[in-house]
Amino acid sequence: MRPAVCTSLRCSSSSKEKFLTQPIITLTTDYGTNDHLVGTLKGVILKINPEATIVDICHNVVPFDVLDAALCIGSAYKYFPPRTIHVVVVDPGVGTQRRPLLVSGEQQYFLAPDNGVLSLVYEREQTHSARHITSEHYFLHPVSNTFHGRDIFAPVAAWLSKSWQTQAFGEEIADPMKFSLPKPKAAGSALKGIVLRIDTFGNLMTNFAAEELPQLTSGGPLRMTVNGKAITKLAQTYAQGEAGEAFAIVGSSGFLEISVHKGNAARVLGVQRGAEVVVEVK
Amino acid sequence: MRPAVCTSLRCSSSSKEKFLTQPIITLTTDYGTNDHLVGTLKGVILKINPEATIVDICHNVVPFDVLDAALCIGSAYKYFPPRTIHVVVVDPGVGTQRRPLLVSGEQQYFLAPDNGVLSLVYEREQTHSARHITSEHYFLHPVSNTFHGRDIFAPVAAWLSKSWQTQAFGEEIADPMKFSLPKPKAAGSALKGIVLRIDTFGNLMTNFAAEELPQLTSGGPLRMTVNGKAITKLAQTYAQGEAGEAFAIVGSSGFLEISVHKGNAARVLGVQRGAEVVVEVK
Amino acid sequence: MRPAVCTSLRCSSSSKEKFLTQPIITLTTDYGTNDHLVGTLKGVILKINPEATIVDICHNVVPFDVLDAALCIGSAYKYFPPRTIHVVVVDPGVGTQRRPLLVSGEQQYFLAPDNGVLSLVYEREQTHSARHITSEHYFLHPVSNTFHGRDIFAPVAAWLSKSWQTQAFGEEIADPMKFSLPKPKAAGSALKGIVLRIDTFGNLMTNFAAEELPQLTSGGPLRMTVNGKAITKLAQTYAQGEAGEAFAIVGSSGFLEISVHKGNAARVLGVQRGAEVVVEVK
Repeated sequence: MRPAVCTSLRCSSSSKEKFLTQPIITLTTDYGTNDHLVGTLKGVILKINPEATIVDICHNVVPFDVLDAALCIGSAYKYFPPRTIHVVVVDPGVGTQRRPLLVSGEQQYFLAPDNGVLSLVYEREQTHSARHITSEHYFLHPVSNTFHGRDIFAPVAAWLSKSWQTQAFGEEIADPMKFSLPKPKAAGSALKGIVLRIDTFGNLMTNFAAEELPQLTSGGPLRMTVNGKAITKLAQTYAQGEAGEAFAIVGSSGFLEISVHKGNAARVLGVQRGAEVVVEVK
Repeated sequence: MRPAVCTSLRCSSSSKEKFLTQPIITLTTDYGTNDHLVGTLKGVILKINPEATIVDICHNVVPFDVLDAALCIGSAYKYFPPRTIHVVVVDPGVGTQRRPLLVSGEQQYFLAPDNGVLSLVYEREQTHSARHITSEHYFLHPVSNTFHGRDIFAPVAAWLSKSWQTQAFGEEIADPMKFSLPKPKAAGSALKGIVLRIDTFGNLMTNFAAEELPQLTSGGPLRMTVNGKAITKLAQTYAQGEAGEAFAIVGSSGFLEISVHKGNAARVLGVQRGAEVVVEVK
Repeated sequence: MRPAVCTSLRCSSSSKEKFLTQPIITLTTDYGTNDHLVGTLKGVILKINPEATIVDICHNVVPFDVLDAALCIGSAYKYFPPRTIHVVVVDPGVGTQRRPLLVSGEQQYFLAPDNGVLSLVYEREQTHSARHITSEHYFLHPVSNTFHGRDIFAPVAAWLSKSWQTQAFGEEIADPMKFSLPKPKAAGSALKGIVLRIDTFGNLMTNFAAEELPQLTSGGPLRMTVNGKAITKLAQTYAQGEAGEAFAIVGSSGFLEISVHKGNAARVLGVQRGAEVVVEVK
């Protein structure tokens, strides 16, 4: 355990600032919205801290999919105010020995199972520390083996939003589980990447970061293939494509996307998540 | 009509406590989330009481399905703080003579049509009383025949959250409609139950309460059949199953569930809601 | 540009009233709820104005469908309190020259791209004015070409909810884009209309306004056809129909609907959005 160095978020609880606005707790889960699960989390939080403002980020993460959840919270969190508490529960290992974590980033907090779901947070927050949540008196008892969102993560979020004392919840650990986003790989004169996710409009978000593809900024020709279809147009806006034509565009998260103007690229191209995307780079 | 006995919730409106936090109003409906219906309820509430905190429990109750709604609110409500007002609108009889009700439980309030949707609340709240909402000056006029969520339940919830005077909304009634959850039935050496609902992960929630199956706690062998498939494993966590293997587990609401590790039990077993589940008990 | 006449909403910012309750910002989008987009808007708003109450109206507008969005916000907005700020982002032209607008209605505000999505608002608000949002210092920088909900509409909503100074965001314009709802057309002894939308229950909302069909109030016979099926019954409540029978009913927005008691009219009648609906009027 490190000495209690008072820096950034972790020791500012004496500041008056924290009382000025309602605490914000966000929720990101794979619970779906067809039953009582999400509502139950909100009840648990409000029963402990009725002043909390609860914000849904997404409850339709692909079930059990830690990468999908990591992309979701990784894309959204930095837009929230300092001191926001983000609860991320995609937790196929619920009830096993996997640790529940409280992570302090540069300005915000994260509660999640230790399964890599915060990997993008670790990658993007230069300073961060993780605690293994062990203080069971903050839990809802009896603690089930199947619903730690209700029994551990929601109550800890609510108590944290009252006390802001991270050290009360458990000891720091040095080895939270992390994974890297799959990166494009060199293959001859090309880079091979994948479709990371497909949005509501059918746009294909790839794992090509725009800044890693010099032709995107140099204006050089684009030669790209997905599911046997060639894509050579780089558009600046979704509306620039011809009807039915597939084109590439730099999406709002900085990754290359494949899109069809007023159409559904996933359906037009017959592509699913995980599909290979090849970009010629030479 | 009973005399106005001042107990519990119903007469505490003189307490200062009620002003300390924002009132909480939850919504449980079958309206779906594809149009303006849910947003309209929220507008109506906030126009009457802008201080209300509105919490969605679920808007994807199976359309017209009073049992599904009863399970949803019955599973979630007890996690909410005292004085929460729960609005439950699954209302196939909207516009008919079915009564709109205001129910006071031990610590919380419920607004719903009198069609049994609060049956689990009645079962679980030792003390409760129901009023027939008749005070039309609290309604939104003209009152439609098709959208009492907007015209009756939302405005009554909002006015209640300002006054906390239940008696202002109508007289007490003694005969609210109730139904019982379907219970497993003895059949020779077995109990026959059903799949009550299927969650987002494909887990099958049965109507076997864990405490009614002695082998679950005694560690005796489990012999269970659903759609012709035998299930003999009782897991403690979702992660204990082998890939693709179906197993039983006690779910977070205390009912026996059938699950597949990182899989969708409903699809793997080819089972829909209402399917028969047989458990050998001798 | 018109002179700065101080009427209604636009100049009341000196009133103390505005400080009494939390500002309300609603969201209507076609972003869906499968990823971080909606959560990101909320983060942006709360980072600028943590006091805002954010209300989801609908995020499942049919993608790119400006008419569907116009119906959604047009049906919901009037139920919200004065000073509500409605953000409507269905924006196939994002990143092009289409203007972002701030519209002041009689009592409420609207932020949307200038693509007709506020047409019903313009039609229903007797007094309204529109400004072209050009004050880029309120935007989130760098402004993307693909996500103006995040970069323009959400931050402008949040800043407006702090200052209430509409004139700070840009000049008034006289020519916001408007379209009319498709109206029924005379065809011999009949009127031909269409199915405007289908709700969660499968009810078909037509474009026949109830007040334009005299037989609805006179009690004259109803003769109506959709997809070759005759409909002659006009019900007062959804529960009046026989099981499986299609009937007409005046819906909660004042339009004629076609419904099936406890059934899904769209499936029973084999009808999709846009289908022709014929009503005999002579």
